[in-house]
Amino acid sequence: MDITKFAIPEIIFGRGSLNYAGQCALRLGAKKVFLVSDAGIEQAGWVQRLMDILEKEGIEWVYYPGVTSNPRDFQVEQGAELYLKNGTDVIIAIGGGSSMDTAKGIAIIASNGGRIRDYEGANRVNRPLPPMVLITTTAGSGSDISQFCIITDVERALKMSIITRTLVPNISIVDPLILRTKTETLITQSAIDALAHAIEAYTSTIASEFTKMQSLKAIDLIIRNLPRAVETRSLDSLEQLSIASVAASMAFSNASLGVEHALAHSLGGHFDMRHGVIHPILLTAVMRFNLDYAEDRMADIGRVILNTTMGSPRETALAGIEKLEDFFDSLNVSRKFRQELQDKDKSLLKTICKNALNDACNLTNPRPASWQELLKICKEVW
Amino acid sequence: MDITKFAIPEIIFGRGSLNYAGQCALRLGAKKVFLVSDAGIEQAGWVQRLMDILEKEGIEWVYYPGVTSNPRDFQVEQGAELYLKNGTDVIIAIGGGSSMDTAKGIAIIASNGGRIRDYEGANRVNRPLPPMVLITTTAGSGSDISQFCIITDVERALKMSIITRTLVPNISIVDPLILRTKTETLITQSAIDALAHAIEAYTSTIASEFTKMQSLKAIDLIIRNLPRAVETRSLDSLEQLSIASVAASMAFSNASLGVEHALAHSLGGHFDMRHGVIHPILLTAVMRFNLDYAEDRMADIGRVILNTTMGSPRETALAGIEKLEDFFDSLNVSRKFRQELQDKDKSLLKTICKNALNDACNLTNPRPASWQELLKICKEVW
Repeated sequence: MDITKFAIPEIIFGRGSLNYAGQCALRLGAKKVFLVSDAGIEQAGWVQRLMDILEKEGIEWVYYPGVTSNPRDFQVEQGAELYLKNGTDVIIAIGGGSSMDTAKGIAIIASNGGRIRDYEGANRVNRPLPPMVLITTTAGSGSDISQFCIITDVERALKMSIITRTLVPNISIVDPLILRTKTETLITQSAIDALAHAIEAYTSTIASEFTKMQSLKAIDLIIRNLPRAVETRSLDSLEQLSIASVAASMAFSNASLGVEHALAHSLGGHFDMRHGVIHPILLTAVMRFNLDYAEDRMADIGRVILNTTMGSPRETALAGIEKLEDFFDSLNVSRKFRQELQDKDKSLLKTICKNALNDACNLTNPRPASWQELLKICKEVW
Repeated sequence: MDITKFAIPEIIFGRGSLNYAGQCALRLGAKKVFLVSDAGIEQAGWVQRLMDILEKEGIEWVYYPGVTSNPRDFQVEQGAELYLKNGTDVIIAIGGGSSMDTAKGIAIIASNGGRIRDYEGANRVNRPLPPMVLITTTAGSGSDISQFCIITDVERALKMSIITRTLVPNISIVDPLILRTKTETLITQSAIDALAHAIEAYTSTIASEFTKMQSLKAIDLIIRNLPRAVETRSLDSLEQLSIASVAASMAFSNASLGVEHALAHSLGGHFDMRHGVIHPILLTAVMRFNLDYAEDRMADIGRVILNTTMGSPRETALAGIEKLEDFFDSLNVSRKFRQELQDKDKSLLKTICKNALNDACNLTNPRPASWQELLKICKEVW
């Protein structure tokens, strides 16, 4: 094994763990917290709840509500201005990937200056960031665990991957009680996002024993619990999805991903499509594309999905991919791009595939890919 | 699941990762490092190697060579004096559990003052510790990953467990190349120590999904790789033992242990016995004692040890324990106390068992135990 690094935040997991937010902020030296969230989370009452928790510990806060889905460069730059102007010292975000990535972008600019696009790629953030506590309200994006931050560059119409160890927050709070207020769609999309993280991290060229066990655990938990979680909303199955998301995030944060995510970032920059919508369309097509270059690992994934093995690794791998397709079919999700996009959008695919090649996730795909090959995959699932 | 916390250091793992030590120290702000090790590691050339690495990065160091096995209270107190007198700012330890626990003890006293016994138990260290980089030269103690520090109180003749999140070092460096210079005995004892960590953490009352997967991975790797590692010294099998030790340490640091370790700490305080010597004698006896209170979990352990299941969970659990006894028998280790101790030592067992009840590890054992019950176990395996 080559040298491998494994870094995760301190994790506080469990029903009611949100109540620890104030103590966590205090431990990190907070006097005045910069609080990041969005309108949906506010309406669900979680922002007020968090403010109450901070107030109880005697911590002041400034609230930045300017988060949208697929956060944009100018938004984090505005946020950083506010952070500095108000003399805040610790950042707390509560929300999905968008809120947490906005918080991370703000942290970068507030401490390193410049424009967010200056930090695109791997390891380009030099100065330490303000302390961060991230509280996830979904079980998918993994931004609360990972060293990833995805921000849309509006001018270039693409999602930038910013990856650096200092983006791992100090503390991640995962409270499954929060998931109960989520819609069926969001629960499904988040779980699919975590599943794609787990699978691409497992076949990544830099996967390690530490990330691989997390990937397989996450795949197992999502396949076994998502249908029940959607159907019954039982707290137990939602909790299992939260565990799966944390495990998948530990994996992809340290093993990175592959071309499916490179494409998802590029597509998301043009079409404002959520990852959870893109994966059921693209993931298994990319797995088939990668199969010859990662047969044994695909067989491991197949074994977990099928809960058994077939005659050969290749058969197990293929049967696993087919079962995964059945799994997506059984959920209320699109399986073709044409269900989500318009005919005219097809002409953008070439640019999208070319942009995907520049995404950092492309570097760790098991099979080297040209933009023409990516285009072929996208057309297959149009 | 109740609220669970999971904290580990940043881990740099792999052949040659020792070379990162200087950069790690710099990243933590080092100007003058306090370097902790022992005579054995020094003789093997690792201390000089580390000094060269620090020098290359322009970092000064002060060397504290005063580590013995089973480190004592006065040693860490002397070390802390030296740390403060020399104006050092980052602690690096290279060695086994003794060097790393000495470093942790020095860190506590240097920043929190007082005597080391003031911090015995869980969560009694309040002020932040100096930054620490721990480099393990064994694959067992897990001190480089864990929030544990075990120091002998000479006056009371017992090993104190000091447990607090801030004892998790900033960075853990695990370089399997270092293991190649170890004796067969040390490789075996260290792997058995890791195995006992994994098993007791798995049946701990505060085990979580995050710790459980690490425990099972560690058990699997040790059972499959220890015999080959001892026989062939192949770098691959030594590396697998290192992975197992890291996994076991992530588990026990966050799930704690049980009465077997409580007894080992108490025995170690009286007899200066290494954990790796105690476990083959005590572990399976304690597993049988706990069986009725953790049958399903023991069956999971059995399934991994046996690589199959029997007719019922209980049968799988029992067959696993038997197989583990065969495994210990196949290694060159003592299986009874009388092989290690003298007849007159038997009279101390009562005090030892009473002291064990006060050890923090006792709190998370699946079955509540009286000192009389512990004494019965110890006599069984005398």
